[in-house]
Amino acid sequence: MTYCVAMCLSDGLVFASDSRTNAGVDHIATFKKLHVIHHDDRVLVLQSAGNLATTQSIVSLLETRMRSNSEPNLLQVSTLYDAATLVGATLREVVDRDSRMQQHASTTNFGCNLLGGQIAGEAPRLFHIYPEGNFIEATRDTPYFQIGESKYGKPIIDRVLTMETTLEQAMCCALISIDSTLRSNLSVGLPLDVMLYRTDSFDASGQRRVTEDDPYFATIRKAWSEGLQNTFRQLPPFSL
Amino acid sequence: MTYCVAMCLSDGLVFASDSRTNAGVDHIATFKKLHVIHHDDRVLVLQSAGNLATTQSIVSLLETRMRSNSEPNLLQVSTLYDAATLVGATLREVVDRDSRMQQHASTTNFGCNLLGGQIAGEAPRLFHIYPEGNFIEATRDTPYFQIGESKYGKPIIDRVLTMETTLEQAMCCALISIDSTLRSNLSVGLPLDVMLYRTDSFDASGQRRVTEDDPYFATIRKAWSEGLQNTFRQLPPFSL
Repeated sequence: MTYCVAMCLSDGLVFASDSRTNAGVDHIATFKKLHVIHHDDRVLVLQSAGNLATTQSIVSLLETRMRSNSEPNLLQVSTLYDAATLVGATLREVVDRDSRMQQHASTTNFGCNLLGGQIAGEAPRLFHIYPEGNFIEATRDTPYFQIGESKYGKPIIDRVLTMETTLEQAMCCALISIDSTLRSNLSVGLPLDVMLYRTDSFDASGQRRVTEDDPYFATIRKAWSEGLQNTFRQLPPFSL
Repeated sequence: MTYCVAMCLSDGLVFASDSRTNAGVDHIATFKKLHVIHHDDRVLVLQSAGNLATTQSIVSLLETRMRSNSEPNLLQVSTLYDAATLVGATLREVVDRDSRMQQHASTTNFGCNLLGGQIAGEAPRLFHIYPEGNFIEATRDTPYFQIGESKYGKPIIDRVLTMETTLEQAMCCALISIDSTLRSNLSVGLPLDVMLYRTDSFDASGQRRVTEDDPYFATIRKAWSEGLQNTFRQLPPFSL
């Protein structure tokens, strides 16, 4: 499994991904699921969930086509919408190719992708791209998307996130959401790859790998757990 | 969908169920999913998730066989283990019957049951019964079970519940767990049916229906939401 979350807020974008892949509980590995493309006039961030063979192929094809400057490619599209269309088409291309090769393709989880970023000339945008290659865009009403094992970590986001949440608070929220997921599903695992992107910065340096002994992550995990327990203790007990 | 949770603690048992059934979002109805059997020397509580035709049939067959005193029946078994075996066999009987009648049986969710209670001569026990008719029992390590849409409401239980939690606190925890689920999945809905059973009481009066305007439920929903938001505001924001 996988858990990735991305948020498109007034101040910019927030991305967080786990790094565990598994083919059964006895076949676990670490792969980065957050890919950053940075060029003068654009920062693009791709997160992927689902079959690793599919998601790696998509990234490889997108990168190869940027290097060889074959059209269309992600360095040449002029809007995030066009970038999402291109990622969707590449996903569809890989799914079609691999479906033909697999007898039991219907049982394969080809997965989903999140694509966010900014291309000069427009505001930051965030898209959720389906295996069929089509996609939806985050809006003020729903400023975040999750892919993979999303349920355990959804309630906290729904309770605290708004468009006006700062990027630093939003990353804290994303990390708490992942912590709830880590505790409940063994197939989601550390380390995490996270990125903050500030609107109009065209700066991709806001990346960090969060490991088991990351002091900030340890602090907020402990404070959150204690805060929940304190809140719970103050609730009035049930009476008939 | 459905969400039911049951807990087997030092002081006794706690049960909470939603009441929504649906066949598509445009076909929603309310059915009680918590069934109590009370006789001099026993209190048994059955909760069911999955196909309503299956779960209603199981309850009907179990009740009919108690009334007609055909053996074995739930008033005549001498342990909770035997009661779980009987519920499992009845579930298997209905699943086998209905599978034969349905061409697309493989796509039907026959669901699971939780059976908890106490029969004089032994301590309270709690079982999770699978569609195959076999079952597992709650232990000190894992003192609770969930059936149906369990993921949204699991993190809170994992963080606060222990064997020593009082029944009144545990019910508060179960209601918070259901609240998190109600917010995220439209197919889980009010009213709720809840029951507290105190060890050795053989008293089934601890039942209540919790509706939208229940003052206690409204109080803890609000306090929990505010407490989470306060806790979140006190967390240090992320920095690179």
